[in-house]
Amino acid sequence: MTPVGTRLFQEFRRGDRRALARAISLVENQVPGFQAFLHGALGLGSRARRVGFTGPPGAGKSTLVSAVASAARAAGEEVGILAVDPTSPFSGGALLGDRIRMQELALDPGVFIRSMATRGSLGGLADSSMEILDLLDAFGFPLVLVETVGVGQTELEIAGTADTTVVVLVPESGDSIQAMKAGLMEIADIFVVNKADRPGARRLARDVQMSLHLRGGGASASSWSPPVLLAEGQRGEGVAELMEALEAHREHLVVSGELQRRRRARAEDRVRRVVERELVRMAREVMKGSGIRERVDLVVEGGETPYSLAHRMIEDLLESPPPRGIPEPG
Amino acid sequence: MTPVGTRLFQEFRRGDRRALARAISLVENQVPGFQAFLHGALGLGSRARRVGFTGPPGAGKSTLVSAVASAARAAGEEVGILAVDPTSPFSGGALLGDRIRMQELALDPGVFIRSMATRGSLGGLADSSMEILDLLDAFGFPLVLVETVGVGQTELEIAGTADTTVVVLVPESGDSIQAMKAGLMEIADIFVVNKADRPGARRLARDVQMSLHLRGGGASASSWSPPVLLAEGQRGEGVAELMEALEAHREHLVVSGELQRRRRARAEDRVRRVVERELVRMAREVMKGSGIRERVDLVVEGGETPYSLAHRMIEDLLESPPPRGIPEPG
Repeated sequence: MTPVGTRLFQEFRRGDRRALARAISLVENQVPGFQAFLHGALGLGSRARRVGFTGPPGAGKSTLVSAVASAARAAGEEVGILAVDPTSPFSGGALLGDRIRMQELALDPGVFIRSMATRGSLGGLADSSMEILDLLDAFGFPLVLVETVGVGQTELEIAGTADTTVVVLVPESGDSIQAMKAGLMEIADIFVVNKADRPGARRLARDVQMSLHLRGGGASASSWSPPVLLAEGQRGEGVAELMEALEAHREHLVVSGELQRRRRARAEDRVRRVVERELVRMAREVMKGSGIRERVDLVVEGGETPYSLAHRMIEDLLESPPPRGIPEPG
Repeated sequence: MTPVGTRLFQEFRRGDRRALARAISLVENQVPGFQAFLHGALGLGSRARRVGFTGPPGAGKSTLVSAVASAARAAGEEVGILAVDPTSPFSGGALLGDRIRMQELALDPGVFIRSMATRGSLGGLADSSMEILDLLDAFGFPLVLVETVGVGQTELEIAGTADTTVVVLVPESGDSIQAMKAGLMEIADIFVVNKADRPGARRLARDVQMSLHLRGGGASASSWSPPVLLAEGQRGEGVAELMEALEAHREHLVVSGELQRRRRARAEDRVRRVVERELVRMAREVMKGSGIRERVDLVVEGGETPYSLAHRMIEDLLESPPPRGIPEPG
């Protein structure tokens, strides 16, 4: 299994956009060999700044992501964007407009956009999202943006793996304060109160600031205090301030050593995820094996329990493990 | 590891309620040996009818569960109830009233109620819920009810492991039709439109019936066509009809062989879950081992990737597996 020598990898390495798109599909669909490809891609090095955007649906995240991408382009930087949307097609509407705006941005050859909604066959959306971000990074984009729709557990997990996480709120999202309690406060490096022309924007910004104050209690663990910005993404207002805040947070990350700490935590989490996904895959291989149907019948009839049968299967797996799906080192 | 001989197991087997409560805590907290206890408990046999209740928050599920439990008690049956609530304490309110009603029911020594909100350390809420239902069953309750708050993926999973799944809707839950599309239609054996005195109840019942009709297309795979009942749980209206529907579905399950099919699918799913949780636990043991910190540092520095390191760890695990946490058969 040496996909590093394959044509796709060579094209990916040369910067061929179609090869990137195909590599992402490979990873998204977990085509056999995808982990070897990722291993090779990660060997090309990592230099991207990764910025995550999350917040309640309808907060205008796509608009803000587009604005940040445009600003980066104006500064001559290429940008890779991943939009993760696990919600059903029923939810959209407002979204569609944002996506169309994003599609305009996609006409710029300096911007690469991919959206994903499906879960991989194993390991879920978070694993696949992180692997696609790695591909965008390895491909060479100096700036990689990831946007998640909504504030579910998985979505917070994904946005939280970025170097900098931007939480976008809007005045009328009545749930925002509650949502903040559900983990947003913990992952936010920067808050943006979007659609700031609407009533209640300043009040919301004050509330967030207050919560931060109550919670933070001075420069304890971190010397970074998340700014709360006002913006109107649609009109481009507040985007310059957001770019400055992103830059300031970047500098903080590097100077404080926090970047290194986050990358280490991310690496550890990734190793754990890869190990667990692979073991689950191996277990499913074993469970496909002969005699399983009869054994499960014994559970129903009462001769075995799920625990005694699971014990046997794990012994089977340890004794004659199925072929591994991740590459040998080196 | 032979907890079957322990005092707790003997007390559990004798029908001591305090032993049941302690056994549930053992399982909920995944105290070492909990799987051996479950293995022993499952050996005591299984005879409970299991009925699951799910639906959007505020649909009055607890009230309906209490009413069904009371009706079963009036018929001389003992009842075990598990209420699964993964939502944050912020959501409740209406709920509290229902819970108080349930607490009154709990004064009846023929009723055992347990609610759980926390996830186990490994494997999540669904695994633990299923194991607690097994305990209630093994303890000897002929009727076991499980109620999940909300219609998230995990909650549908839990309610769907019952023999019969009741989906509770209310007229004003605007999301109900959308929720139905998100999996409720697939798992419902019986629909209850609760709070049927409110406007829109009959219309909702008709809509559900229509959806079922469009979707079903006659007696294809199953000869069961889910009834759509109207109820006012608070006043006890419609409860007799629900009891009849539960009985009718039970008969259908037995006669059609569907009960056997569902139990087989449940057993297979349970084996898979136990195997996967145990492998993940073993992997975490291995990852705690010496040298891991240094290896993760190599991932950050670029000498390894998560894939090459995961490969090594899986080889480590296969070569010298940590002690297993599930009992040997026999």
